[in-house]
Amino acid sequence: MDSARPRPLAEANPFPETIDPRLRRQLTFLIEADRLKTVLRQSPLAAADRRENDAEHSWHLALMALVLAEYADEEIDLGRVIALVVVHDLVEIHAGDTPIYDAVMAADQQERETAAAELLFGLLPADQAAAVRALWDEFEAEQTPEARFAKAMDRLEPLLLNWMARGGTWRTQGVTADDSRARKAVIANASASLWRAGKELIDESERRGWSRPGRPAAPPPGRPSR
Amino acid sequence: MDSARPRPLAEANPFPETIDPRLRRQLTFLIEADRLKTVLRQSPLAAADRRENDAEHSWHLALMALVLAEYADEEIDLGRVIALVVVHDLVEIHAGDTPIYDAVMAADQQERETAAAELLFGLLPADQAAAVRALWDEFEAEQTPEARFAKAMDRLEPLLLNWMARGGTWRTQGVTADDSRARKAVIANASASLWRAGKELIDESERRGWSRPGRPAAPPPGRPSR
Repeated sequence: MDSARPRPLAEANPFPETIDPRLRRQLTFLIEADRLKTVLRQSPLAAADRRENDAEHSWHLALMALVLAEYADEEIDLGRVIALVVVHDLVEIHAGDTPIYDAVMAADQQERETAAAELLFGLLPADQAAAVRALWDEFEAEQTPEARFAKAMDRLEPLLLNWMARGGTWRTQGVTADDSRARKAVIANASASLWRAGKELIDESERRGWSRPGRPAAPPPGRPSR
Repeated sequence: MDSARPRPLAEANPFPETIDPRLRRQLTFLIEADRLKTVLRQSPLAAADRRENDAEHSWHLALMALVLAEYADEEIDLGRVIALVVVHDLVEIHAGDTPIYDAVMAADQQERETAAAELLFGLLPADQAAAVRALWDEFEAEQTPEARFAKAMDRLEPLLLNWMARGGTWRTQGVTADDSRARKAVIANASASLWRAGKELIDESERRGWSRPGRPAAPPPGRPSR
């Protein structure tokens, strides 16, 4: 497995040894993190005709948390919410983005992402590797008010982009408005009012024909169903 | 002036009126912020052969603050530092990026950015417009430990990218290593050790010929100097 380990970007041009070794490890990690800018998501931007990347997405979640914090149903430490969203997608540098509606990729998502976390966070000094890993684990587990709110931002942002695109990833093969409602319902764990708004966007998109109808389409007439 | 006011992106597809007006204003602002993903900076990415955009850059600063906070010479509220870097470039949506070495653009930078701030933050409910404006003002004024550290991240990040590019924007017409030292010295206001490392990168780049020599080049021989 070690032979397949991707070479850190900074190895192509190592930082001078006159820089303290701890700081050199941190800079090596921060340069490796640059790769997040190249991991493409499915979501279309509202401001340009291209897909969003993970770094832009993470920034957008941070800004959303700042503006929408007042809707949290529980007391939250906003600084911590923002820290969670800043690191939440880092593992995708080596594991890739797993689209929310992709059941095949979802099957081994956890395994891929855990391996990727060890690889990437392992570039940091051990104490910080553990600290960043703890932030990622907290986000994934959704057991704290901050993680629930961070996750709500992560679900709401592509919903807003899909609204602006009059469909976007809702046009993915086989996805229905009911699927969207099911995947987005975690927003309600953090904020009843944001989920009310999110559901309104899904409902209205369905009414306007921007997403497929609620239930999976019936098989074409004349073809026996199995 | 009002006729030149750019039309908010969300007006092309307004949010349903069933959503609370305050939240609708916030969502309209958050969609407008999507434009930050299209504002290009001069810095080359380390991970791909293209220039960085402001949204990616802002995310990278947030991650850097998280990893490098231990080097702050003053006590800092990390959550506030991250909030500052998340909003610090928003005004460039309407004012554009002003390259650090561009004296012509720098001349009216403040005026352009203040007008842009009013335009963009004005999409928010008044209380939040004031709060986000206050964050931006705090960053610009560099009068708090958090703003000084945020500004240090903003200066250090392109320095790291230039190092990885073996020159990058240091190859801009007329820029010398002394210019870099002068523009980057504000890092020292937040962290002596980060500035020591930053200066080491500039010095070593000069030694390796990745940036122009310290002082402006002498005129070619035989040509009278003025």
